[in-house]
This record gives sequence, structure tokens and C-alpha cells, in this order.
Amino acid sequence: MRIGIVGLGRMGRQLALRLHRAGFEPVGYDLDETARAGARQDGLRTVGSLRELAESLECPRRLWVMVPAGEPTDAVLRELLELLEPGDSVVDGGNSNYLDSMARAERFHEKGLGFLDVGTSGGVWGLENGYCLMVGGSDSLFAAWSDVFQALAPSPDAGWVHAGPNGAGHYAKMVHNAIEYGMMQALAEGLELLQAKPLVRDVGAVAEAWRHGSVVRSWLLDLAAKGLSEEPGLETLAPHVSDSGEGRWAVEESVRLGVPTPVIATSLYARFSSRQENSFAARVLAMLRRQFGGHAVQRRNEGQR
Amino acid sequence: MRIGIVGLGRMGRQLALRLHRAGFEPVGYDLDETARAGARQDGLRTVGSLRELAESLECPRRLWVMVPAGEPTDAVLRELLELLEPGDSVVDGGNSNYLDSMARAERFHEKGLGFLDVGTSGGVWGLENGYCLMVGGSDSLFAAWSDVFQALAPSPDAGWVHAGPNGAGHYAKMVHNAIEYGMMQALAEGLELLQAKPLVRDVGAVAEAWRHGSVVRSWLLDLAAKGLSEEPGLETLAPHVSDSGEGRWAVEESVRLGVPTPVIATSLYARFSSRQENSFAARVLAMLRRQFGGHAVQRRNEGQR
Repeated sequence: MRIGIVGLGRMGRQLALRLHRAGFEPVGYDLDETARAGARQDGLRTVGSLRELAESLECPRRLWVMVPAGEPTDAVLRELLELLEPGDSVVDGGNSNYLDSMARAERFHEKGLGFLDVGTSGGVWGLENGYCLMVGGSDSLFAAWSDVFQALAPSPDAGWVHAGPNGAGHYAKMVHNAIEYGMMQALAEGLELLQAKPLVRDVGAVAEAWRHGSVVRSWLLDLAAKGLSEEPGLETLAPHVSDSGEGRWAVEESVRLGVPTPVIATSLYARFSSRQENSFAARVLAMLRRQFGGHAVQRRNEGQR
Repeated sequence: MRIGIVGLGRMGRQLALRLHRAGFEPVGYDLDETARAGARQDGLRTVGSLRELAESLECPRRLWVMVPAGEPTDAVLRELLELLEPGDSVVDGGNSNYLDSMARAERFHEKGLGFLDVGTSGGVWGLENGYCLMVGGSDSLFAAWSDVFQALAPSPDAGWVHAGPNGAGHYAKMVHNAIEYGMMQALAEGLELLQAKPLVRDVGAVAEAWRHGSVVRSWLLDLAAKGLSEEPGLETLAPHVSDSGEGRWAVEESVRLGVPTPVIATSLYARFSSRQENSFAARVLAMLRRQFGGHAVQRRNEGQR
């Protein structure tokens, strides 16, 4: 069974490989020739354009799009809207905003094309472990793609869910990532409480023990214990944490719904703080303490100003 | 090998049973005759006083104390200080404050007695799954008790750790529980974001899918998915969350160390908020909005005042 894969970055390529192992015939395309060459080295078939990709698939065509959210996804979907024919269908497996997915589904439906938004979790471990899939779309299209979901999921009967109509898949993925932010921040704060206390001999050994039988055992803890065993003090890492949109959208959604999510919001702000090298708010506080209390302030070095 | 178990509540009894299954001969004591009778029904041997318990063990005696933190633990340890003889040793397996454990260890050492503080995680599932054990105390006493730790842990070579000298075991447990608070709050907020969105069909089904292959897979998620499958809307539960000390101590410790733990602190405060039926702060806000903006306020019913 042929299936088109658009986007041969790390996620797209591993996803194509997992489908290949399950007996599908993935045909891959990426804007970038280096990515295409990498996919061919993995034994995958590639083509040089979206048009070629459409021509290489039988009708009704199925295509899985796995490119960065926002403009890259938009560009691919706009082109597919022109190339595909009624009955064909497309999965957006990236981290798109669910509001975008609802709007894109509308445009696809107007042309008789199918559209599913599929939140895809599992990261670089998905090839071996399988992906957790949260699907938004119609019952019939969900059924038509079930063979693909079964091949990608950790097992045919677990780890994939029809979350609701279009938008629900990416909404569920947004919430999943927001929970991930909170869990990571909780772990990070706790590990710093251990690290800051001379009483505790070996933070990594404690984390390793927690993996077995404790209440906080989790895949994120597994990764933390592994990272701490490789570099106990994490000395080579800068304390700089990126964020990729999902956490921001979740906080926006909490405001839209009036649902309090203080831990999720705080986790997002902790990432913002981690990237500030010269916080204006902290300087305002220092300035105010000097104003009312005559407290000493620290001056920045000349070179830093 | 005989071992004394003080405290035959749910945790103590299951711990004794796990030791019994591993070939130890636990002898149990509890202040409460009902708890003792329950232990006997499980096939455990019990005695009627701490003195009898001491008399029933060979020297050097080993006793595992599993009673509520604070005064109950204090009362037991004070009595054992009088009853035991040099060379005997005691584990406090409860959720004691690590500062108390450091002070108690001093008093035990002055009398030639051994003391270990052992943070014990695993809850009511420990009998089957084993317990995660975080041990504080001397190297020699840690070695002398290793057979017990191996029997209680999920497997003989995993899930137990010598965290450091006395105090380190209960410190690590305090941090473990604080991480648990944060992870639970992150999950809870995310699940409410799903529940509040009509787009999402079935919150429990999404949680169940997340258990497989997702980044947030964890034992707490397993429990959440189970609970949601049993009662999807959680209608019979009051939105009232208790806390048992460890979270408060972790926040106090973060203040002592100057380590920012915003998510852990926020998780603790969310529990406090859950127990407020008539928040004074919320009424202050309503009063102030009326004062400066003439905003309408809601009046409490006569009966509520």
C-alpha cells in the first residue's frame, strides 16, 4: 500500500521507516535535497516534487505531512489543495495550532478532499517504540486511515485515539505538550532541590532509584536519570530552554476558556525566564529596593551594558 | 530472620507481608488492637506491646517503624530508645521531616543504637510492585539492612538507594513527593483543558491513548486513565484536595536554600485553594472591583453567611 510522506526531517523519515517495516510502500518528498538523500540512504524511495509525489500514488491518494508547523505546513497544504483530486486525503501530523487545522479542514472539504489532524508524540524514539496518535476528523476518514495508525502506534490496539472532529487531534496534542511542560518543570525543580543540598550524595542515583516502584516513575524521569548518569552536573549545558508554540497556545486557550492552569503557565514562564540574560523586571526590583530602603545594588560590568 | 514491624496500618501490614513472602519472620505491633487483629488475619504474628516486641527479637534487633509522622513516630522512637540495647537498630520508614530524622539519629547514636531514615514510596500497590526506598544513614548500617531493602524493593538490584547520611533519605522522599505534587497538578490542569472543550469527545480515551508511546506516559497517568474510565466525569468526588506535610516542607526548604520552585509551590497552593469554601482574598478582589469600577458583585445567600 503506497503512502506519500511529505517532510523527511528526523520525525518524517523515522515515521516512513516504521511504515516501511510494517509493509507499506512510503514514497517521500522533502524540499531539501539533503533530507531526500538521507532518506534514500535509509532505503526509502523519494521524489523531487509534490507533483511527482501525487503522480506516484494510486487514487484515492493518502499523504502524511510531517513538516514544521506554521508557514512550512501552510505552503505544503496549499500546494496539495491544487494537486489532489476528490477522494484523496491528507494527514497533518505536525504540531499545528488546532484553530489552523479546523480552518484547513474546511478548505479541504470544499474541494472534496479529506483532512485529518493527527497529534503525534514519541519524538526520536518513535521508530522503535511507536507513536502515540491523537486524531481529529470524521468517523469515515478515521476508519479509512486506521491501518496506518495501527502500524505507527506502539501496538495495533493501543496508543491511538479518535479525539473528535477536525481540530480535536491537534487540540489534544497541545494539551499533551502543556502537561509535558508542567511535568518537566516539576522534575527540574525537585532535582535542583536535591542538587542544592550537600546532604544528598548523588542526584542521579536518587533519580535512578525513583524509576522503580516510586509514584513519580515516568518516561521523562527515565530520560532525566539517563542524562544525569551521563553528566551528573550537566556542566556543559547552558541553562537556556526553548519553547515551540504548544505551551503558549495552551495558556492562550486557558484564558479563552477561563480554566486556571497556574502550573502550565508557570512552566512556560520559567522557560521565558531561562532565556533572559538581563531581565528588566529584575532591574526594576533592584531599583525599587534602593529607592525605598537604600539597599545596595549590584552594578553590571561596563562590558555588559 | 526476625524483624520487628511497628505500625500495622495499611502500609505497615503490606510491608510486613512482602517481607514474609521473601522469607523473613516479621513480628508486628500496633497500638490499636483492631490493626493487630487485621494483621493476624493476614497470617502475621503480632505482640501486644513494644516491650514484648523487643523481647521477641534476637540481638542485634532490627525494627522497622511505619507509623504516621510527627507525634506518633516520636512516641514510638522515644519508647524504643529506652527498650533497645547497643547494636540494635531502627528504620523510620514513615514520612518524617528530615530535620527530625537528623535529630533522632543523634539521640540513637548517643545510646549506641543504629538509626536509618528510609523514604518509602509505592503506596498501596507496594505489596505487589515493591517499594522505592531512599535511605539515609551510615554505610555500615545501610549494608547491614540491605537484605531487607532488597526484599522490599521492586527488584533486588533496583529501586533502593543510599541517598546520604541521616536525613538524606527523608529529604529525598520530601523532594519525591514535591515532584509528585507538581506532576499531578500538571496532569489535572491538562485534563481540565480537555474536559472544558466540547471538541474533545472522551477525556478518558485520550488519557488512555497517552499511556502508550507519548512523552507524558507515567504511573500517575496510568492511575488517571483508570479513574476516568471508572467515572468519566468524576461527579461523585468533591473538589477538595488534602496535603500531608511533605509539600509544605519542600516549599520551606526552597526558601531556606533560595532555590526557586514555582511549580511545586503553585501545586501546594492549588491544594489550599481547593479547600477554601469562602476565600477572603476573592472577596477582597470583588470588594476592590466594586470600589474603583462600580462593578456588580455577587451576594452570598443569607444561609451561607
